Amino acid sequence: MNASGNQPVRVVRSPEDLAVVVCQAKQAGQRIGLVPTMGALHAGHLSLAEASCQECDVTIVTIFVNPTQFGPDEDLTRYPRDLAHDFKLLEPLGVDIVFAPSVETMYPAGHETRVELGELGSVLEGACRPGHFSGVATVVLKLFHLVPADVAYFGHKDYQQTLVVRQMVRDLNVPIEIRVCPIVRAADGLALSSRNTYLSPDEHRQALGLSQSLQLAADLVAAGETDAARLEQQMRAHLAKVGGIVLEYIALLKSGTVTPVDRIEQETVVAIAARVGQTRLIDNRIIQPAPAP
Amino acid sequence: MNASGNQPVRVVRSPEDLAVVVCQAKQAGQRIGLVPTMGALHAGHLSLAEASCQECDVTIVTIFVNPTQFGPDEDLTRYPRDLAHDFKLLEPLGVDIVFAPSVETMYPAGHETRVELGELGSVLEGACRPGHFSGVATVVLKLFHLVPADVAYFGHKDYQQTLVVRQMVRDLNVPIEIRVCPIVRAADGLALSSRNTYLSPDEHRQALGLSQSLQLAADLVAAGETDAARLEQQMRAHLAKVGGIVLEYIALLKSGTVTPVDRIEQETVVAIAARVGQTRLIDNRIIQPAPAP
Repeated sequence: MNASGNQPVRVVRSPEDLAVVVCQAKQAGQRIGLVPTMGALHAGHLSLAEASCQECDVTIVTIFVNPTQFGPDEDLTRYPRDLAHDFKLLEPLGVDIVFAPSVETMYPAGHETRVELGELGSVLEGACRPGHFSGVATVVLKLFHLVPADVAYFGHKDYQQTLVVRQMVRDLNVPIEIRVCPIVRAADGLALSSRNTYLSPDEHRQALGLSQSLQLAADLVAAGETDAARLEQQMRAHLAKVGGIVLEYIALLKSGTVTPVDRIEQETVVAIAARVGQTRLIDNRIIQPAPAP
Repeated sequence: MNASGNQPVRVVRSPEDLAVVVCQAKQAGQRIGLVPTMGALHAGHLSLAEASCQECDVTIVTIFVNPTQFGPDEDLTRYPRDLAHDFKLLEPLGVDIVFAPSVETMYPAGHETRVELGELGSVLEGACRPGHFSGVATVVLKLFHLVPADVAYFGHKDYQQTLVVRQMVRDLNVPIEIRVCPIVRAADGLALSSRNTYLSPDEHRQALGLSQSLQLAADLVAAGETDAARLEQQMRAHLAKVGGIVLEYIALLKSGTVTPVDRIEQETVVAIAARVGQTRLIDNRIIQPAPAP
């Protein structure tokens, strides 16, 4: 709808105003793309908005720091927020609408309903962050209802989140297509994250250990290594050498699942979570098995 | 769409076939009414379908005995099922589509996501039937996604269920209107229920104690009684006199809530649950306070 160019993005705050826009687009038979974000946008988010602008007639980016996906000891209050800057970043892309509701709008008094996942929501990130995926699934489903889009875009950096959203959509028969876009990395390899702004220069250097260890795993597999335990061992050794990293988990998973693999015989996702200083970071990499010799 | 008359109802078994019908109706700008049922239809269900046929262009009745809302010791396997008879009952009303999916269609292997309510889901019926309202909310939300109707119709007999559905719709921003239709009773006062077929003639006579006790409460309030505890006492005395009734609860609730009231000073819902033989029955009645003298 909004031709690419520096047109100001229209910001909508209320579900009622949003419904008017969505209804008009639906009636005009336009394809709607939804990009749910928590703001503090970086090139990873922008790649999602770009994909939507290319593939859809109307692109709606939501910016909402969702309190229910943060644990009590997490960084909800200090999570970076800069709406004015976010709007500026979205303008050149051709994004039509930014939906930026308040917490009171999304969770009025008396809000009690939540979406619960099974096993998938309780392992890895779910084990480290109890309740996190229930909060994610609940707010994403609310956004899917507020913006009944044709397609919604998520980033592969939150690998388990993409599985959670896909599972919820499948289980609850939500009529929406889910698209997952690749991780966007800084030139030095660090996976882009709004939380990277927390890192001091020293911590930033240490944080590179995560993407380096994933690269190491990919290199070892390309060289013929197939044993998951040995790969994890090599990754741990690299992280120890870098120092300053408190590892939470390394997981080698059958792609599209959270099922651990013993051997790299099919597409595998290597996922890592760690703390660097006060900052919790996650990263992952899709690894293909080496071709048979 | 289907003019009232004895046209055969079209039965749809798969979400894919349903999507085609729904999509056509949506594109034609037709108003869609949804009547979710578990089949074994009686005049209560038919009143919902009639309301939808009057108010909507297309009426879709769903028939699905939802296993996830039954407890392990409940009557899932013996719950009455007679689809052919259900279809016959719906034909004269002008119902357009019956969606009657299989359990495997609704809950394929790996289904894990569920909707959880808060407090509202854990008291009264929720306390007697743990997990019941999570099962109800989950299947209703699935049906709302499969049939993105304008309006969905529910019966007031399942009073707490109507609150659960309304809360879910509000909390999750589901774009649907919820209509609640009055309880339909047999000539002798028994609230219609698919489970009434379980009752022997003796048990049927005993079961009348439920509606009689609700009538008694209404009569006492009309005569000036305002004290909830005295009303409950009188109802219990009546049920004891009738005999054969194992009471689960009597609750006097602020209308539209599950909040108990001490005095009848505003619209009140008196709800009752009891076992008669092996059969669990619920009933309720809306009671208005007597006008000030």
